[in-house]
Amino acid sequence: MPTTSVGMAPRQDDFAIMLDDLKKSVCAANLRLVAEGLVTLTFGNASGIDRRQGMVAIKPSGVSYAEMQPRQMAVVSLADGAVLEGDLRPSSDAPTHLALYRAFPAIGGIVHTHGTNATAWAQACREIPALGTTHADYFRGPVPCTRRLTDAEIQADYEAHTGAVIAERFAELDPLAIPAVLVANHGPFTWGKTVEAAVENAVVLEFIARMAAKTLRIAGETPVMPPALIDKHFFRKHGAGAYYGQKM
Amino acid sequence: MPTTSVGMAPRQDDFAIMLDDLKKSVCAANLRLVAEGLVTLTFGNASGIDRRQGMVAIKPSGVSYAEMQPRQMAVVSLADGAVLEGDLRPSSDAPTHLALYRAFPAIGGIVHTHGTNATAWAQACREIPALGTTHADYFRGPVPCTRRLTDAEIQADYEAHTGAVIAERFAELDPLAIPAVLVANHGPFTWGKTVEAAVENAVVLEFIARMAAKTLRIAGETPVMPPALIDKHFFRKHGAGAYYGQKM
Amino acid sequence: MPTTSVGMAPRQDDFAIMLDDLKKSVCAANLRLVAEGLVTLTFGNASGIDRRQGMVAIKPSGVSYAEMQPRQMAVVSLADGAVLEGDLRPSSDAPTHLALYRAFPAIGGIVHTHGTNATAWAQACREIPALGTTHADYFRGPVPCTRRLTDAEIQADYEAHTGAVIAERFAELDPLAIPAVLVANHGPFTWGKTVEAAVENAVVLEFIARMAAKTLRIAGETPVMPPALIDKHFFRKHGAGAYYGQKM
Amino acid sequence: MPTTSVGMAPRQDDFAIMLDDLKKSVCAANLRLVAEGLVTLTFGNASGIDRRQGMVAIKPSGVSYAEMQPRQMAVVSLADGAVLEGDLRPSSDAPTHLALYRAFPAIGGIVHTHGTNATAWAQACREIPALGTTHADYFRGPVPCTRRLTDAEIQADYEAHTGAVIAERFAELDPLAIPAVLVANHGPFTWGKTVEAAVENAVVLEFIARMAAKTLRIAGETPVMPPALIDKHFFRKHGAGAYYGQKM
Repeated sequence: MPTTSVGMAPRQDDFAIMLDDLKKSVCAANLRLVAEGLVTLTFGNASGIDRRQGMVAIKPSGVSYAEMQPRQMAVVSLADGAVLEGDLRPSSDAPTHLALYRAFPAIGGIVHTHGTNATAWAQACREIPALGTTHADYFRGPVPCTRRLTDAEIQADYEAHTGAVIAERFAELDPLAIPAVLVANHGPFTWGKTVEAAVENAVVLEFIARMAAKTLRIAGETPVMPPALIDKHFFRKHGAGAYYGQKM
Repeated sequence: MPTTSVGMAPRQDDFAIMLDDLKKSVCAANLRLVAEGLVTLTFGNASGIDRRQGMVAIKPSGVSYAEMQPRQMAVVSLADGAVLEGDLRPSSDAPTHLALYRAFPAIGGIVHTHGTNATAWAQACREIPALGTTHADYFRGPVPCTRRLTDAEIQADYEAHTGAVIAERFAELDPLAIPAVLVANHGPFTWGKTVEAAVENAVVLEFIARMAAKTLRIAGETPVMPPALIDKHFFRKHGAGAYYGQKM
Repeated sequence: MPTTSVGMAPRQDDFAIMLDDLKKSVCAANLRLVAEGLVTLTFGNASGIDRRQGMVAIKPSGVSYAEMQPRQMAVVSLADGAVLEGDLRPSSDAPTHLALYRAFPAIGGIVHTHGTNATAWAQACREIPALGTTHADYFRGPVPCTRRLTDAEIQADYEAHTGAVIAERFAELDPLAIPAVLVANHGPFTWGKTVEAAVENAVVLEFIARMAAKTLRIAGETPVMPPALIDKHFFRKHGAGAYYGQKM
Repeated sequence: MPTTSVGMAPRQDDFAIMLDDLKKSVCAANLRLVAEGLVTLTFGNASGIDRRQGMVAIKPSGVSYAEMQPRQMAVVSLADGAVLEGDLRPSSDAPTHLALYRAFPAIGGIVHTHGTNATAWAQACREIPALGTTHADYFRGPVPCTRRLTDAEIQADYEAHTGAVIAERFAELDPLAIPAVLVANHGPFTWGKTVEAAVENAVVLEFIARMAAKTLRIAGETPVMPPALIDKHFFRKHGAGAYYGQKM
């Protein structure tokens, strides 16, 4: 019987199908980043994880988006980063993705972009304050910025240390309540329960980053947003009491 | 005879046709918001009212624009917000629309967007000053910003209170002379005699919001615009003495 | 013989052909403004003049660009603004165009847009300084801004007075060396020997207005551009010593 | 035998084929500048060099991009700028390109654009600081700005002097580690080992110029980027230890 019954462990065939589906989702997510205007040249990458198999599918490094295929996605081991499948080198940012999958067990997908506005905030080494309901619909509070890496952290295991400073910054934050971070001097990472959610969070992050920069210029200082309004909008869309969108 | 004669009340069939036409207009208005670049993801909504029947057609909540159909528009009662037609939940902002239709009896359509520039002004909690003739062609004076809602107003009947603070801000303003408002920490609402006019006002609001932000940055302070010039341009396009466009 | 011989006055048929050609050029110019992103809704207008016949072809007022045809262009008399041809009302800005054709005998076409950046400078009531060679390729010095109109000038013959303050501002300027102006609180007008040149100047004006605003923000103050560099670039493209482009 | 054997000098036919290929590459590079949004009207130009023959292929001056063909590329002598091939005048900036090919023997292609953001930095006469990893991926340090030209340098041999001040600015810089410059009051030039690389550097320069301007506005001052991070990212993509992209 090819299908998995309740209570039975998946068979080997099912694992292969699950991995193929993941590679399709990850490829589609990378292409959607292009369609959403978040990619210049080959910058940026998306990944997804199969937690049962401990495998991460991620964009190959420096490959043109024009002819990207699911079969080109690199598959690496969550445990040690070894390449398990694929002829192409994984994104050079793969160790950062792996560090985040280990630090945040609830997430299923990660996106890194060089979106103009979110990157500008990251380059400014400044968190994005919650200034409006569009922000609060997706992020329950400011989008934080990491500390700068030390020279030692830069010179050895740079990409893994990038993941480590993100995890450090979220020591007391819920990564699903604030599914984004700015890496100082670098750019944004977003995540979500799925790679599709990570892409949606990347789109919204760029949008609120652009609006926040405009808002500061118009206001001349950082305007106040009542915490009650942040919670109202976040919980209109998330959690048991959500009433935005259609009932599922 | 299926047609309505002069002096006769519309028949049941006519009411159904009127409602179908309204749903078509409202669906088209929502799609035009996308075409005009005023929509990110599923943000924003447009509605129209049939005042004879006391019914409002509005975008369903959180539905993708890609396959939006007139029959998906939710129809709600002006009196109490009850859903009268449609399988989909109305926009979560529907109570705000209803409050505005009750407060402003002359309007026939309402649009809410998260347009980048108008939203930035709303997030800055700052009215858009009248700085040029493009503004005055559509808005006879600054586009006002509401006060912030109190925590109590946020926590219960939030969307209805959003409508209430807009109506409060317009206590001494003519909603057809200034068919737009900024809700503090949130974004813009526009309206008009029809939903098409509400969309046009949303397009112009975003345009003048962008130009006003640029103007302040270039000028370094808010430039003066003579009140006589505001009136000249507003009345070139509106009212008995209008001479812009073709005679109707 | 239908053709005009050297030394003969044009025949009536020739005049009709000349006017048809002018209407085609003016229609094409209006449509190119849309293609260049200089038009929102129905804002903006282009005109051209046939000086031998004393006739000006101009966009009709408030007409949609989607189906604009040469035969819809309104033809008005240079002498008194009377409509000579066409069923549609001319642009409400026609009296401004006529005032400029009378004040600047060397020009053959005029364009008025609400381009975002040039309009922002006009709303700031501030001339655009010459900050780079792109500016100097087209404008030999700052693009000037008019004074504000008085209330009396606004309330009667407003559009003609708009033309008059432009002419006043150019009392000591050569309109072909600086083929553009900003009308305070309003927006830009450009012109040229032909309506095509006026459109090209409008495209470049918007471009240099955008760059100038960015430059001021980056520099923090107005940078110096050597007058010798302005002249070098202007005369690389204009006049007897020009060496940009192909020999004609 | 039409092919070149190892150790043999290329035959005359081979030289012709090499030049044809160069003209194709240069034409494609010019058209890609349009596709990347770096060109307004006919501004900007790209060239490539055949160092064995001492010939440079460059865009003709003031020619529309719409119908540009490889055979229209002008071919000029590296030694003295004489036109060797083509019916059209070379770009008026050709003497600047020649000066750079002479000063930087390692480069094979040059691009000059009027990209909005890079030009704004040039007009501000301000170098673009290295503020993030996107910058450091391509430029190992700030993108420098030349000094202003003197009036004498402007008035005679202007374009050659433009090349000379660039070379002067790079007296102690490696042009392949920082393959871009801003000419004060003018705009950017980029280069690379090939004309394709020069185009890629032009695309990235415009991108980092836009982000740098946004970053300064958000930060309020120039943020610090650790030199170790600049080197890490530059050498991730360049040199013997590079590990970005696929192995060649």
